Amino acid sequence: MKYSFKNDYSEGAHPRILEAIVSTNLIQQDGYGEDLYCQEARELILKSMASTSADIHFVSGGTQANLIVISTILRPHESVIAVETGHINVHETGAIEATGHKVCVAPSADGKLTPDLIRSVVNGHPDEHMVKPKLAYISNATEIGTIYTKEDLLALRETCNELGLYLFMDGARLGSALCSRATNLQMSDLKDLVDVFYIGGTKNGALLGEAIVINNPALQADFRYMMKQRGALLAKGRLLGIQFRELFKDDLLFDLAKHANKMAFKISDRMAELGYNFLGTPQANLFFPILPNTMIEKLHEKYGFYANEIIDADHTAVRIVTSWATPEAVVNAFIQDIETLTL
Amino acid sequence: MKYSFKNDYSEGAHPRILEAIVSTNLIQQDGYGEDLYCQEARELILKSMASTSADIHFVSGGTQANLIVISTILRPHESVIAVETGHINVHETGAIEATGHKVCVAPSADGKLTPDLIRSVVNGHPDEHMVKPKLAYISNATEIGTIYTKEDLLALRETCNELGLYLFMDGARLGSALCSRATNLQMSDLKDLVDVFYIGGTKNGALLGEAIVINNPALQADFRYMMKQRGALLAKGRLLGIQFRELFKDDLLFDLAKHANKMAFKISDRMAELGYNFLGTPQANLFFPILPNTMIEKLHEKYGFYANEIIDADHTAVRIVTSWATPEAVVNAFIQDIETLTL
Amino acid sequence: MKYSFKNDYSEGAHPRILEAIVSTNLIQQDGYGEDLYCQEARELILKSMASTSADIHFVSGGTQANLIVISTILRPHESVIAVETGHINVHETGAIEATGHKVCVAPSADGKLTPDLIRSVVNGHPDEHMVKPKLAYISNATEIGTIYTKEDLLALRETCNELGLYLFMDGARLGSALCSRATNLQMSDLKDLVDVFYIGGTKNGALLGEAIVINNPALQADFRYMMKQRGALLAKGRLLGIQFRELFKDDLLFDLAKHANKMAFKISDRMAELGYNFLGTPQANLFFPILPNTMIEKLHEKYGFYANEIIDADHTAVRIVTSWATPEAVVNAFIQDIETLTL
Amino acid sequence: MKYSFKNDYSEGAHPRILEAIVSTNLIQQDGYGEDLYCQEARELILKSMASTSADIHFVSGGTQANLIVISTILRPHESVIAVETGHINVHETGAIEATGHKVCVAPSADGKLTPDLIRSVVNGHPDEHMVKPKLAYISNATEIGTIYTKEDLLALRETCNELGLYLFMDGARLGSALCSRATNLQMSDLKDLVDVFYIGGTKNGALLGEAIVINNPALQADFRYMMKQRGALLAKGRLLGIQFRELFKDDLLFDLAKHANKMAFKISDRMAELGYNFLGTPQANLFFPILPNTMIEKLHEKYGFYANEIIDADHTAVRIVTSWATPEAVVNAFIQDIETLTL
Repeated sequence: MKYSFKNDYSEGAHPRILEAIVSTNLIQQDGYGEDLYCQEARELILKSMASTSADIHFVSGGTQANLIVISTILRPHESVIAVETGHINVHETGAIEATGHKVCVAPSADGKLTPDLIRSVVNGHPDEHMVKPKLAYISNATEIGTIYTKEDLLALRETCNELGLYLFMDGARLGSALCSRATNLQMSDLKDLVDVFYIGGTKNGALLGEAIVINNPALQADFRYMMKQRGALLAKGRLLGIQFRELFKDDLLFDLAKHANKMAFKISDRMAELGYNFLGTPQANLFFPILPNTMIEKLHEKYGFYANEIIDADHTAVRIVTSWATPEAVVNAFIQDIETLTL
Repeated sequence: MKYSFKNDYSEGAHPRILEAIVSTNLIQQDGYGEDLYCQEARELILKSMASTSADIHFVSGGTQANLIVISTILRPHESVIAVETGHINVHETGAIEATGHKVCVAPSADGKLTPDLIRSVVNGHPDEHMVKPKLAYISNATEIGTIYTKEDLLALRETCNELGLYLFMDGARLGSALCSRATNLQMSDLKDLVDVFYIGGTKNGALLGEAIVINNPALQADFRYMMKQRGALLAKGRLLGIQFRELFKDDLLFDLAKHANKMAFKISDRMAELGYNFLGTPQANLFFPILPNTMIEKLHEKYGFYANEIIDADHTAVRIVTSWATPEAVVNAFIQDIETLTL
Repeated sequence: MKYSFKNDYSEGAHPRILEAIVSTNLIQQDGYGEDLYCQEARELILKSMASTSADIHFVSGGTQANLIVISTILRPHESVIAVETGHINVHETGAIEATGHKVCVAPSADGKLTPDLIRSVVNGHPDEHMVKPKLAYISNATEIGTIYTKEDLLALRETCNELGLYLFMDGARLGSALCSRATNLQMSDLKDLVDVFYIGGTKNGALLGEAIVINNPALQADFRYMMKQRGALLAKGRLLGIQFRELFKDDLLFDLAKHANKMAFKISDRMAELGYNFLGTPQANLFFPILPNTMIEKLHEKYGFYANEIIDADHTAVRIVTSWATPEAVVNAFIQDIETLTL
Repeated sequence: MKYSFKNDYSEGAHPRILEAIVSTNLIQQDGYGEDLYCQEARELILKSMASTSADIHFVSGGTQANLIVISTILRPHESVIAVETGHINVHETGAIEATGHKVCVAPSADGKLTPDLIRSVVNGHPDEHMVKPKLAYISNATEIGTIYTKEDLLALRETCNELGLYLFMDGARLGSALCSRATNLQMSDLKDLVDVFYIGGTKNGALLGEAIVINNPALQADFRYMMKQRGALLAKGRLLGIQFRELFKDDLLFDLAKHANKMAFKISDRMAELGYNFLGTPQANLFFPILPNTMIEKLHEKYGFYANEIIDADHTAVRIVTSWATPEAVVNAFIQDIETLTL
């Protein structure tokens, strides 16, 4: 059986999460997110971000989180700004457009949105014959594994304020982003920097679940209506609550992210030492080394991972993803195989 | 702590389901429903319905199932027919309309759709100044706990064939419906009688999950695109697969439904003996006895349940729901309390 | 050639309107409603309604006006309240639902919405499992030719204020309604009583065109974006401007409506004298006399009109519509034919 | 008063069209496109394109035509392919996205779509995590005044057939395109080359109106429902019918387009002789000369036109549009002014 570095959702949940599900299983709770566990999870998250006023809701996945948040914020003629590689632009089967909104894209080599890119999109939409950009969407980590610093986010916040835009952060891999050695951004910064963000559970040790955090009070009204309408208000909302309660107890979420990052950096650092280059700089639990096709073929006998981009006739950038569940022993073996194939 | 008869999703999952989740937890699987467990679950469901050609997909909840199925079937100007009390008409926050489609309603005292009701809606929409009804939606059990017989469904099927309509069955409580003493309908009948249906897991012992079954080959194409677009393609689709695999092993789903029904009938039969009337005839795991307000007040001290409809100054119809998890001891105590309050 | 009483859009435009179109034809103007004629028309309309602050936009038809106004006002989970016979509920092929919104209906024998009906709809939608009614839609005249008085509108306004609803008046036949002998409502009342309304041109002497008037400043922002997105911003907006400029010069719009009403009342008064009953009370330029089928058959030899509702085996309610273009000679002949057929 | 070269919709309608409107004004006709004039117009159009089986419908504008056609053709998860400068991508305020569909764009220097561009978009969308391109959209003339030849269209048709795509041609300026000296494409070619196209009236001498022609029988069903739902079925459809009847009598539409083209070529040819360059090659009734800013400033004293793109510190590409109504005397004066400012 090959070991898969294809993604960070190949396994189930962290054992502590399963234990919490099992131990509370037969306790009756109200439905639709009005259970005790959701409430406790909300309090733990608020505490971790040093906020007292954010609204927190749990949904089952990232596309769902994105489409609900974006369609809640925008009026019909308004659009969302994203980089060309943004998840909402490429990998969600037109989920945003299906709610009626255009995604206005800007090219970005490192997958990060910048004040200049935002400004260029806004300037390109001057009147009512075009959509009106009203929301900037970023993901942290980005689709190509890059990370925002606190300074990056401050600059985006200022630009959004100046231009009258909202700022939304997709945090499907927020744990890995906040725990990256490449950033100074902290959980407690987010309440002041983004209007809405979500914290990914699915890719960081939960069976499923993303926690949407609405900082801006103007965007909080009637959010549960929007969730229900899009099919996101789970009858057994307890399943999401209990997982996030566990993830935010004793910093489990961050410990899991740190492990994933550590495994990633272990591999990417060694690859760098061995002279390999990368698409972008490895900063999170996914990275894109450029490897010889012959090596890729050999590695594929024992490991699963995706080709991402053909570089030249002999080289391909591949995508390596580690997770909370990646065993260090497998990482060591993988590194050894690379060393062997390099020599 | 009061015992809740409010609904059939107050607890977590049946222990066998949790065990299956735990025991497969660290086995790596592909994402998005392409895992081994989903495949095994599909095969078990096909076998249980004696079909070889249906397409089966798993989603996280009923509103999601309804909105995806209906928006997949209909062209923009087409509408879905439902009874006025239909879940899609009342309790889904306009989820169907949010996909662009009108719900054309027909009044129905017992919550069931009939050939005559379908015909009256179709006849009322003769030209392009109105929507074009194209799909009949039923739920089995209905919102008010009534059940379709095989003859009921045959008659609907014939009417739909004659009028060029599709027929879709919402089976959020399909287990209870098929196991009801009030029906002769069987799982294996469904492949010939409805174009699409779904099998509810959430209300019958799963943590979450509904299995959408597409019998009609003309409706099968590209369904996964539609799921993804609506945020229903879970990264860890395994969570849904493993649960349905377990539910369809050794008839667990039906055993759980039988227990729920048995508990419901035990209460409703005794209430009938004691002279109480009902909204509709008790046929499934939810029923609506009409009780004196004084009794309701007393019962509320120990039990949770919802008032459904004011009957007169002194009487209210309440909603009682049992489930796979309802302990017989609680049912016995509840009956005893009613007997005491009756005398 | 039969004379048609089928509707009020069987002819082209009033000659004065055609003359204005012809005489300005080759004067270059800016596009998209930014021409001189639209500006002059806006000023004349503001003057006629004694407002200085309303925003006015011109679109090509009633369904377009309704769908743009309603989708501009509502957030995705919000719904519009209408009577069951409301144009948006029946005769617009799901145009409102196609923008994502449910129409919540209330039964009304005379086609008018009332405070009690509004209240019953709002009370029936208490939480986030249902849509949130946010807008009351009325048409004046209604689909069945009834008319709102100033007192009717005041009561609706108060109810909407109390319940936090907006109030929108479809005025496809506003001219006829305001000029009806059955009302005391005046053009200048509208600025205080409804948030938005539109003034029908198509059914009152224009080639096409409805003037949307937005009284509530909170609903004025970005309306041209919404028009453009729905395909309603005509390149040659001048065509709408010049017509409304003409309609509001020297009260042409009201003169045309008065003529239509006069022709209608002439017929309906005589029918009443002859002992015929009506669906509703004749109040506008369309009314619904109940006639013997034998008479209808005879009349159909010379006149076109629609059957509206079968009353009994021998009687049918038919729909008679007069317009600005209905010749009095035809009306006299029609009355005479009825008299003859009555005796 | 400056003369405007800003666009081809600054005036009203060609006098023959106004005469036809006036002369038929009081003849009663059925509504909603079922009048005699629409029928006659359809027959004339069919004859001009040598088709017997196309369905033809009239709507009031180009954005409306585009959004109705595209939302009729596509299922919810399907997308439309267009060049980056395509009208639907830039200048329609997200009208297509508002119907739920993504516009997949390809860069194109000359504004034309090619088989290779189509192929690259399709190849970039391999699975259900992305939208499924299903329709290729072209406009002829393009936004930047370029024209498709018969060979161009044949190549697109073959590519679409191979890839299972539909092909739709936006013909807002079809008259100018077909009458251009730069093409061999004829009206009678269109029935075999595109699934749907529309013939622009608004920009070629009508007050308003576009004629949608549906060649592909599979796309013809229920189109009037879609028109009604989007607010495009005008009550007085006669207004569109009478105009298109006139435009297709004695080739008026083509005569008007030829005049517009002749005026454009007269200017652009002389500019070329004088040494000026262009964005793209002038081929239709709009073109984009690159002029010194000093000259532009001078010209603006007497003529209206838009700046399109800054070329360098001293030069700007401007947009010049001629029409059926452009007087040759004005063109001569304009040329003389350019000559004077050149020397």
